[in-house]
Amino acid sequence: MAQPDFRVQLLLTGNEIMSGDTVDSNSALIAMRLRELAVNVYRKVTVGDDTELLQRELTAMAKESDLIIVNGGLGPTIDDLTAQVVAAVAAVPLAEHVDAVAHLHSWCAKRNTPLNAANMKQALLPAGASIIANPVGSAVGFEVTVNNCRIVCTPGVPSELTAMMDEIVQGLAEQLQSPSGVNIVRLQTFGIGESTAQQLIADHLPDWPEEVELGFRAGAPQMEVKLTINTDEAAAAQQNCKAQIIELLGYHIIGEGEVLMAERVLQLLRERGATLTTAESCTGGLIASMLTKIPGASDGFHAGFVTYENTIKHSVLGVSEASLAEQGAVSETVVRQMALGALAKSGADYAIAVSGIAGPDGGSDDKPVGTVWLAWGTGDDMRTVNLCWPVERSLFQTMVAAAGLDMIRRMLLGTDEQPRYFAQRRAK
Amino acid sequence: MAQPDFRVQLLLTGNEIMSGDTVDSNSALIAMRLRELAVNVYRKVTVGDDTELLQRELTAMAKESDLIIVNGGLGPTIDDLTAQVVAAVAAVPLAEHVDAVAHLHSWCAKRNTPLNAANMKQALLPAGASIIANPVGSAVGFEVTVNNCRIVCTPGVPSELTAMMDEIVQGLAEQLQSPSGVNIVRLQTFGIGESTAQQLIADHLPDWPEEVELGFRAGAPQMEVKLTINTDEAAAAQQNCKAQIIELLGYHIIGEGEVLMAERVLQLLRERGATLTTAESCTGGLIASMLTKIPGASDGFHAGFVTYENTIKHSVLGVSEASLAEQGAVSETVVRQMALGALAKSGADYAIAVSGIAGPDGGSDDKPVGTVWLAWGTGDDMRTVNLCWPVERSLFQTMVAAAGLDMIRRMLLGTDEQPRYFAQRRAK
Repeated sequence: MAQPDFRVQLLLTGNEIMSGDTVDSNSALIAMRLRELAVNVYRKVTVGDDTELLQRELTAMAKESDLIIVNGGLGPTIDDLTAQVVAAVAAVPLAEHVDAVAHLHSWCAKRNTPLNAANMKQALLPAGASIIANPVGSAVGFEVTVNNCRIVCTPGVPSELTAMMDEIVQGLAEQLQSPSGVNIVRLQTFGIGESTAQQLIADHLPDWPEEVELGFRAGAPQMEVKLTINTDEAAAAQQNCKAQIIELLGYHIIGEGEVLMAERVLQLLRERGATLTTAESCTGGLIASMLTKIPGASDGFHAGFVTYENTIKHSVLGVSEASLAEQGAVSETVVRQMALGALAKSGADYAIAVSGIAGPDGGSDDKPVGTVWLAWGTGDDMRTVNLCWPVERSLFQTMVAAAGLDMIRRMLLGTDEQPRYFAQRRAK
Repeated sequence: MAQPDFRVQLLLTGNEIMSGDTVDSNSALIAMRLRELAVNVYRKVTVGDDTELLQRELTAMAKESDLIIVNGGLGPTIDDLTAQVVAAVAAVPLAEHVDAVAHLHSWCAKRNTPLNAANMKQALLPAGASIIANPVGSAVGFEVTVNNCRIVCTPGVPSELTAMMDEIVQGLAEQLQSPSGVNIVRLQTFGIGESTAQQLIADHLPDWPEEVELGFRAGAPQMEVKLTINTDEAAAAQQNCKAQIIELLGYHIIGEGEVLMAERVLQLLRERGATLTTAESCTGGLIASMLTKIPGASDGFHAGFVTYENTIKHSVLGVSEASLAEQGAVSETVVRQMALGALAKSGADYAIAVSGIAGPDGGSDDKPVGTVWLAWGTGDDMRTVNLCWPVERSLFQTMVAAAGLDMIRRMLLGTDEQPRYFAQRRAK
């Protein structure tokens, strides 16, 4: 069941957030995790590193909340004020917390660095606070209770916050002592936009059940389709909706859960005992990097070639100099030879090759910025396509790298169905 | 001069922001644009699409602000509440705004779509509001003044907000009628932590001038040191602080402004007419990808090799099979041969080679997760180091890739000084 009477607020602190130097993604992370317990954040306040402002906000919040999560201000520097502000609101002194001191000692010892005075400040917590372990950073989190309101203080560094959220969610679940009926099915897609997906669903699934909330999270390169229910009774409807969406979006769905494109490709390669190699020009190593970010990538990926310049396409991958001179580096014949060269050099079963114009310069009337040739396949079955994806350089590289992986995924799944972006992004 | 007495708050509305489905980047955009006028946002409140909550916040804010920027809630649907809430706070009725109606008509005509009732709701604004043009969307922005507080309402779609900001900034500049004295010097660093930098500055520069605000922005791989002044009179003090910090942090400083490590390396290569190649194992193409994200990378980077598996290190880069068998892939002799092989295959002047254990698996007592050998240099002058950076896989790859680029940067600058992380991260 949902928790409508449990009032949660967030208090974020940081000059870098107020100034716009940093975009706050932490509050989204916190909100997503709390939703696992059917807990909604109803209000969020952000202020700079200012003792007076922080104290005023926290005092007001504590009067009308059951839980406040404070994010930021746990660092070693003088503008990190959270412990001091929370101590003032709780009307307790700051004191060296023995477990926090121990954490700092072991943290520095592991890194072979001396424990300095700035770091030691991170062990000065409101007296009586209980700490929350930080497996990846020097600042421990901590918690105090003021007039029945729990105040949980977390670090602003996203990886440290992430590492702490399991413990926080678990503690909260115990506090709520009620099983949650919220269940979220997430489907990862590639090559289909949010509005297209929404339109398709509206057109083809008009009898959508009210108890299944449909949501989308657009990202690059993936877009997530989310089916949320708030009670166990809606589970069958949710499963039914999921089946219908899988039917509707077909091979545009990469998988269920948090799966990444590269992860799915490596999984399919592993199932088949096959390996993949890459020959990259305009993506410049990004496909290889996406693959090797996944633990255990070496099962399916042994070798990648970044041939960013024409002479290297010839000397390293054996692309013919005549093809380069006559067709240009961004051509079907060159990208095909790159893929075959990479197969020969690596002994892999499958290859992806990419050559295109990432911009901002280098385009022509004939081949404008965004033009790209992709080749993918095996020695016996090498396929190609010419697309045009005229977006900003970094996004172009991300989308094209994912498209290359997508085509290998589709080939490994044995489908000849063309993705929607072949029609939408086909070069003229 | 700065505008310390001009109080600005942001009010953001949107269920999708509260739920965590959307990360709010709009408030960072607004804050950055206001800083052009030396105007700081001092407080930001975010709530869901709830009339009562919005009205309570806006009423409270209007009592203590000179300017409130409201973002979101201008769309055509029933949960878009901004106009209605602002009208209530201003105690005026909603009325069809003639210019907003005209905008909707021309907007739909251009798109050849009929003007529907939902759209027409976007022309219902607080009576007496002046509108802000939206060149890219159907919702106009609008502004009212309540008790000397300007309330400026903007759309939540980032591209529409962006398109409106010029007009808003210009209007604000006219209101303030004073040039800005804010100036920020940013220094990008690598290989030095926030707390270490702060400690060094505290120890060595005890007479820090009050008018120069010192700030840090920790990131991966870079850390930014910021020197902010609020009046032109402090410019000399700022320059003096900058010179002292450059002296103190030395080669840990990559450059001034927004410069990235890979960008600086490519710039140094370009100045020397030299090229760099990469031979990557554990970083899996990330160094190549960091380089090729920079426009114009082809001047200094022609070829990269991702040799993720031992046989490939031999077949592609010519690493001896005996070295691989006897020393292992994560060894000085192998990483040196990888670098020399990449130089031979690419004809480049400089090489970076990396081989290590990114984890989470693959570590041993002798070579724990985080162990890495780096080689960098030329055919005549190839150097190596053995570090241990036991952090999460993706962060390990990022830091090690940047360390490789850092060593080439230092070599191109002609320094033999060792970075601090050599001592802190040296493998045992």
